[in-house]
Amino acid sequence: MADASPRVVSVGLGARAYDILIGPGLVAGAGARIAAHVPGARTAVVSDRNVAAHHLAALEAGLATAGIGCHAIVLDPGEKTKDFAHLEHVVDAILAARLERGDIVIALGGGVIGDLTGFAAAIVRRGMRFVQMPTSLLAQVDSSVGGKTGINSPRGKNLVGAFHQPSLVLADTGVLDTLPAREFRAGYAEVAKYGLIDRPGFFAWLEENWREIFAGGAARTEAIARSCEAKAEVVARDEFETGDRALLNLGHTFGHALEAATGYDGARLVHGEGVALGMALAHRFSARMNLASPDDAQRVEAHLAAVGLPWKLSQVPGELPGADRLMAYIAQDKKVARGALTFILTRGIGRAFVARDVPAAEVASFLREQAAR
Amino acid sequence: MADASPRVVSVGLGARAYDILIGPGLVAGAGARIAAHVPGARTAVVSDRNVAAHHLAALEAGLATAGIGCHAIVLDPGEKTKDFAHLEHVVDAILAARLERGDIVIALGGGVIGDLTGFAAAIVRRGMRFVQMPTSLLAQVDSSVGGKTGINSPRGKNLVGAFHQPSLVLADTGVLDTLPAREFRAGYAEVAKYGLIDRPGFFAWLEENWREIFAGGAARTEAIARSCEAKAEVVARDEFETGDRALLNLGHTFGHALEAATGYDGARLVHGEGVALGMALAHRFSARMNLASPDDAQRVEAHLAAVGLPWKLSQVPGELPGADRLMAYIAQDKKVARGALTFILTRGIGRAFVARDVPAAEVASFLREQAAR
Repeated sequence: MADASPRVVSVGLGARAYDILIGPGLVAGAGARIAAHVPGARTAVVSDRNVAAHHLAALEAGLATAGIGCHAIVLDPGEKTKDFAHLEHVVDAILAARLERGDIVIALGGGVIGDLTGFAAAIVRRGMRFVQMPTSLLAQVDSSVGGKTGINSPRGKNLVGAFHQPSLVLADTGVLDTLPAREFRAGYAEVAKYGLIDRPGFFAWLEENWREIFAGGAARTEAIARSCEAKAEVVARDEFETGDRALLNLGHTFGHALEAATGYDGARLVHGEGVALGMALAHRFSARMNLASPDDAQRVEAHLAAVGLPWKLSQVPGELPGADRLMAYIAQDKKVARGALTFILTRGIGRAFVARDVPAAEVASFLREQAAR
Repeated sequence: MADASPRVVSVGLGARAYDILIGPGLVAGAGARIAAHVPGARTAVVSDRNVAAHHLAALEAGLATAGIGCHAIVLDPGEKTKDFAHLEHVVDAILAARLERGDIVIALGGGVIGDLTGFAAAIVRRGMRFVQMPTSLLAQVDSSVGGKTGINSPRGKNLVGAFHQPSLVLADTGVLDTLPAREFRAGYAEVAKYGLIDRPGFFAWLEENWREIFAGGAARTEAIARSCEAKAEVVARDEFETGDRALLNLGHTFGHALEAATGYDGARLVHGEGVALGMALAHRFSARMNLASPDDAQRVEAHLAAVGLPWKLSQVPGELPGADRLMAYIAQDKKVARGALTFILTRGIGRAFVARDVPAAEVASFLREQAAR
């Protein structure tokens, strides 16, 4: 597909401001854009075997046409790659390619590749230029925007990392056609999240247009662009997550606990599905606490059900641990400030807020009820 | 010694501003100061066996008196600790201690401990609070000021790291009494450097007062405070080393090449000695290029000789490689922008500047001459 005129979303971060380009054909067209962005730069491209098989040749060809040298670093696919050993490997490969500070590290892949590569770019020579080319819907609307990079620790996910903003994001909507349907759907949970946080009009638009978004074309580009705008706005307000940015965790406290409770087994629950379920639970719990109308919780559940995402605990395949064990996973989650439970709750569609000191006993008895649904 | 009223140097970095406290008794008094700095915080202290044997008990006692929990992480001494394996170990130990984002990681040691610990603090939970307690003169006047943290790579020193400012620096001048004379002298090279960069009056004061500084007392505190002020000023102008901060590398291009050429064998040449020799060479080369008067080079050499620091190549024990090999080490140094040689040269005492495109042939023939001195 031609790289015509992509949508542009600007992330306003002063000296660290950058553009997100969204549209078809951006992988093949990346060479020309990067040559214009940083004349004379050399590049290292980090990808995984699956993504590389589909898209690396097109990227390399475009870079070569633009006269840009490129050193490819191809890793195993999967979450296991986000560890210290692979970080050290990528760092060493970038240094071996003799890239200097002004040269460019490119992440071509989903969230795992983006997080790992961004972290490597953050620490080689105390910070190299970094271009994100997200190839999953989840990465295009979430992980590639906002500068959070990192790896997992045996003690928890994403516990080690850095804030490192990319200098350019190229989100090629065409590559999403090669995604499995389940993965696209999981990424859609994060799209819906932006509507639920503070854009009720966007959520209503999604309820009307989700079929077109799944089919591809203009509605898909529109949904991705509006998601990136939403995230960019929050990030610009709170780059280092000291306040408002926590709203982006809507659905994530319950979601992470469910991911942990299913042993991070993607056959049972992938991240986006956990977030979908977590958002449904956050709305239902908010209704139970008389913060929001039960009609809103019902509306969220109905939309998730329509697109084929899980919205109640009994939809998770296999047995889930009891409420007490789920509470232990919630307490372990990193969004715990000095022992108090912090949740993102809501006053209705598009009216999410940070609730501190949520009583753990209420959450536990809520989870007990929900298990029976 | 009592923790009376230490000298305070403020590092003006806006939201990341912090104070450096300088004086005797600060290790024992750290508990009270940290309790006042961050009420309710918990701490992890990283140190090495040598430093811990002298100072860890006093620090722990002070923290305990102030009601601050403390988890000690004691490593092997030496530069070998600045690698990925030890980074992973320290990161894991901090996470195992269940420290949260607002808690404090303390570095109690010299430059190696400070660099490694600061880097770990930078990446655990994408950035923890960090307190530097430098125990060597070199660390007090150089590495603990400015937020450069990191580890070595098999491909070169300090190639992996982050900019992460401490929230407090406690430089206890009393602990310097336990340093070997050679290590104190090596640290003094960095003190002299600040005079040579842009403070001719400070350099003249050092020529007069160096004996008192080596003996300890008020002149030592004064020299450390003025060094920290000098570095803080440069860092405030250029936090991320895109311009002026390069001046701090005066003596370091030659110095690093000599450290590499002696296989980083501390028995032959430690970092500060390399810097001393490098500064002498930078002044002599500047005179040779008719940028500065030979009298200034002579003055630098005389002062280094007076305090017992090396100032000519023949003073390095054992055989040095020839000029061509030294040039290869210089080219490998990370301060190479797009292949051109960049040096810090000078127009006289206190008049250093960044010289780009220095002709490699001139440097090579200069080194050939110098080898015969």
